[in-house]
Amino acid sequence: MMEKDKLVASVSGFLFEYDTPRMVTVRNKNIGVTFRLIQLGVLAYIIGWVFIYEKGYQSTDSTISSVSVKVKGIGFTNLSEMGPRIFDAVDYSFPSQGSDSFVIMTNYIVTPRQTLTYCTQQQSPRGCKSNSDCSAGEFDRYGQGIMSGKCRNNTEGSNSCEIFGWCPAENDHHVSNPPLLMAAENFTIFIKNAITFTAFGVSRRNIVESITKEVLKNCTYHKVHDPLCPVFRLGYIVEEIKANFTALAYKGGMIGIVINWDCDLDWPENLCIPTYSFHQLYGGLGKEKASTGFNFRYAKYYKENGTETRDLYKVFGIRLDIMVNGKAGKFNIIPTVTTIGSGVGVFGVATLLCDLVMLHFLSKRNFYKQKKFKTVKGDSSKMTTGQGSKDATKTTHCTASRDNPMQ
Amino acid sequence: MMEKDKLVASVSGFLFEYDTPRMVTVRNKNIGVTFRLIQLGVLAYIIGWVFIYEKGYQSTDSTISSVSVKVKGIGFTNLSEMGPRIFDAVDYSFPSQGSDSFVIMTNYIVTPRQTLTYCTQQQSPRGCKSNSDCSAGEFDRYGQGIMSGKCRNNTEGSNSCEIFGWCPAENDHHVSNPPLLMAAENFTIFIKNAITFTAFGVSRRNIVESITKEVLKNCTYHKVHDPLCPVFRLGYIVEEIKANFTALAYKGGMIGIVINWDCDLDWPENLCIPTYSFHQLYGGLGKEKASTGFNFRYAKYYKENGTETRDLYKVFGIRLDIMVNGKAGKFNIIPTVTTIGSGVGVFGVATLLCDLVMLHFLSKRNFYKQKKFKTVKGDSSKMTTGQGSKDATKTTHCTASRDNPMQ
Amino acid sequence: MMEKDKLVASVSGFLFEYDTPRMVTVRNKNIGVTFRLIQLGVLAYIIGWVFIYEKGYQSTDSTISSVSVKVKGIGFTNLSEMGPRIFDAVDYSFPSQGSDSFVIMTNYIVTPRQTLTYCTQQQSPRGCKSNSDCSAGEFDRYGQGIMSGKCRNNTEGSNSCEIFGWCPAENDHHVSNPPLLMAAENFTIFIKNAITFTAFGVSRRNIVESITKEVLKNCTYHKVHDPLCPVFRLGYIVEEIKANFTALAYKGGMIGIVINWDCDLDWPENLCIPTYSFHQLYGGLGKEKASTGFNFRYAKYYKENGTETRDLYKVFGIRLDIMVNGKAGKFNIIPTVTTIGSGVGVFGVATLLCDLVMLHFLSKRNFYKQKKFKTVKGDSSKMTTGQGSKDATKTTHCTASRDNPMQ
Repeated sequence: MMEKDKLVASVSGFLFEYDTPRMVTVRNKNIGVTFRLIQLGVLAYIIGWVFIYEKGYQSTDSTISSVSVKVKGIGFTNLSEMGPRIFDAVDYSFPSQGSDSFVIMTNYIVTPRQTLTYCTQQQSPRGCKSNSDCSAGEFDRYGQGIMSGKCRNNTEGSNSCEIFGWCPAENDHHVSNPPLLMAAENFTIFIKNAITFTAFGVSRRNIVESITKEVLKNCTYHKVHDPLCPVFRLGYIVEEIKANFTALAYKGGMIGIVINWDCDLDWPENLCIPTYSFHQLYGGLGKEKASTGFNFRYAKYYKENGTETRDLYKVFGIRLDIMVNGKAGKFNIIPTVTTIGSGVGVFGVATLLCDLVMLHFLSKRNFYKQKKFKTVKGDSSKMTTGQGSKDATKTTHCTASRDNPMQ
Repeated sequence: MMEKDKLVASVSGFLFEYDTPRMVTVRNKNIGVTFRLIQLGVLAYIIGWVFIYEKGYQSTDSTISSVSVKVKGIGFTNLSEMGPRIFDAVDYSFPSQGSDSFVIMTNYIVTPRQTLTYCTQQQSPRGCKSNSDCSAGEFDRYGQGIMSGKCRNNTEGSNSCEIFGWCPAENDHHVSNPPLLMAAENFTIFIKNAITFTAFGVSRRNIVESITKEVLKNCTYHKVHDPLCPVFRLGYIVEEIKANFTALAYKGGMIGIVINWDCDLDWPENLCIPTYSFHQLYGGLGKEKASTGFNFRYAKYYKENGTETRDLYKVFGIRLDIMVNGKAGKFNIIPTVTTIGSGVGVFGVATLLCDLVMLHFLSKRNFYKQKKFKTVKGDSSKMTTGQGSKDATKTTHCTASRDNPMQ
Repeated sequence: MMEKDKLVASVSGFLFEYDTPRMVTVRNKNIGVTFRLIQLGVLAYIIGWVFIYEKGYQSTDSTISSVSVKVKGIGFTNLSEMGPRIFDAVDYSFPSQGSDSFVIMTNYIVTPRQTLTYCTQQQSPRGCKSNSDCSAGEFDRYGQGIMSGKCRNNTEGSNSCEIFGWCPAENDHHVSNPPLLMAAENFTIFIKNAITFTAFGVSRRNIVESITKEVLKNCTYHKVHDPLCPVFRLGYIVEEIKANFTALAYKGGMIGIVINWDCDLDWPENLCIPTYSFHQLYGGLGKEKASTGFNFRYAKYYKENGTETRDLYKVFGIRLDIMVNGKAGKFNIIPTVTTIGSGVGVFGVATLLCDLVMLHFLSKRNFYKQKKFKTVKGDSSKMTTGQGSKDATKTTHCTASRDNPMQ
């Protein structure tokens, strides 16, 4: 019976009680103002930065994105080996299926009609003096074929190892300058980017509402005048990264196109639009660095009266990597609460600092200490316990007189 | 000596002291209950959301992932230009080496036997009236070659500029409908995905333990009946995104396949299995939008009696982008502590709110203020200091009488 | 007038007041030490882990990255079908344009001179007994063409369905072992990686200052001796992942190369260097798993006396996926403040725990309770209010006697 009452009492006690810390209110201009200022700072930080700037009240989501690209433009070259030649997108862009990382050829060295036979190599890092320099059946790191073991005169008059491989061997000592496909400056790149914020079920494309079929036909991107047009002039991109097109086209290079979606979905969807930025990857050619530029080799294979033949192309080009940064935010109660919670934590800093000042640096620190702290002996040595208990009784009495006047 | 003692005293004081805030326990049903309720809410949030739902006690790791794809199936077309033709994976899937973004051809326009010569262009956005409309040596944005400056009758009977380029020029005004490769609906896509959580040294593949060689041979993915089979029927995927296969195959389209790994490595590894989801990128063709669909051009080059010739294909296809979302969590003490810490911060909110109510909105607010706050004058004007000191002595006395009964 | 004064008073009150909690200082060795220890732990955690280890004082940024690859080396095969044959990078690496995911061919099956006609298929999962097994116009999942409906003897002497397709049909039952291109072990892979931390405007490349043109020419990567050289021997990579090259080359495989940039930009830029690590994706071939290895098919198309012909290659190779992990940090005041703030939150845990112990588990808990808590009745029943008011007066008196000795 008693037990039960006790239990009820304690439970109801627990339920109907509210514990709040007792405070000392210090009337001191300096501390007061300091305190308020710090609090103000914290408040400003929480509201201004965490909430407004970083949108701490939103849950964010990254994206599923997909990019496809189509290049347009015609190039024309007239080389002795090949005769007059037209290059359309199919010829000068790799790979063909418009992925988000592609190359536009701006310069090339062609080695037509290669067949598998014996010839002297061109690229050998060093020539050779005697056959002993050309160990048969091996290849050197920059070799073009398997060495036959012979050291022979080559077309350039010097000596180099004879190889079995695709002959005649490519000679890339001379790269055409000006670049063969300077026309590339006027090629246009049409970028299609679709993006989905799965968490919010929102899909957007970089062809926004304002870009109709008609607009699309004729617009080209301009940072200021037409920032939403998804058709880019290659030359314009190169200007944007402050590079020299001829230099870039001569040896090739890499450019990053960043499509940035930063959407606040608390606003209407159609305000969620992309911004484009361009970055020269590889830090530009200006600085004399090892292995700048961009090139690769590919070949067109065909049979010529039965024997497999290939035209080898060493392609210098501008590689464009398209990268999509997607970020969307929408109000959500959970992050809001979390943010507030941690904000309260930060508030603690104010008290912390002011106490530090008040209790250690002010002239009247001891006085404040007294006000703030009440010391209680609690050592469990016999004597102190006695003290403790006495203390206890007295206190209870005292507190009684204070808090339970009824008795 | 004295100094030393002092030091020891203060140090031991610091060590053996514990400061805890003094509290006022307010016996008021309303506040009490409110307080407990808020606390309950906070607790529920911390335990329920932060810990259980968001697994705040785990350290997470993202992944190294690699995807390879193999497409199977046979397509058959019978065009006047080409005769009966079989398409196997090598013919209709691009690129060949099974990367995570690939295209399955569903429709195409072929322009066989193109050579470099003169002809009238087809795509010219507008025809031409006189030679003056065809400025020699230039090309227009959608042109197919370099204009010779002549304006001539073209095969369609109208006038268009003569160009030097790959001739005959492609005519893509008519796209075959129904799509040529409707068979694509039954093509199967075998996706191999390997994933490594480096931080935890765990590697998994989407061919999980339950998928044996035999199963693999015959299974096809089904959301419900076979959610782990990594072989997907293209038709099924299109159904899943609620699209019409014929429409999609006609003009092409982009589909995202998301492989989602969300692994709780506190459980056995073999419970770490992928889930697949499908997204129509580009928001479907239904809505009348600019430039939907997906197509690209490629060519097969060959020599025909000495002159370079190519068969040009404009390929309409379904591009599939495979994206991998990997996330793994494992218990870790650090995040656990951090979470608890910030949790405590959130608890502060409860007190904050209740104080707000108690000290400003309750009828007995002034009474509570008295209980909660003790005012201390700390201004450094002569008089107050006097006060202060008096105050101090008195207080010490008082506190003495309360706390140090021995004296 | 009065009103105005009141306002001023309250405002100045608010401004010049500082509220700090009143504390009880408990002089108890056990609690004291416990308290300090916990605080020490928290402090150690915040400083050691959050600040020093996790650099909580930095704002971080991820990267824009771009990778290009160049493979070098010569392979030689001598097959009856093809005669002696040299493979250079153009022949054995896919795709040609050096993207960050590429394949090096190590083994292959060639089916030369395929044309579109009728033949028996090889791969049919099961042979056939009668024509009824070969339903005309259809293809089975692993079929090589459209079945004509006939069941015929095939070259291997057994029966299989006749198909219309690329004939002769590929026979991949026998894969050459040892691999045809064992030479691949000595192929070198030159990786160019450029990385930009847009938020900090810092660009770096994996060809760091110490790698000059000369070094580049001759160095090859070694974990210990040359960890910055961006030229990798394929054989070395395979050793690093503890795989057997012959086994890997035989059936193909997937390897991940991770370039890890972890830069502390509070230090000079040139200390920001990459580290390389290698991972066998697909968990190795050792374990008997379904569908390990890596292979794909591609074809070289050409016209042979008018009819379209192709050489079909089934390529087994090592696919290398290059992944870039970029992370950079730089001091920033915002995260610093945030970190401190949440740190303060964690400090709360110490008090929480100690109170728990002190108020519930110590013998003198009741005594401590008395010291820590002051109870105030606040129920709004008539009687208690009376109480309350009495209480109030008494208290005011009492507090007066304590706090405002002037009166």
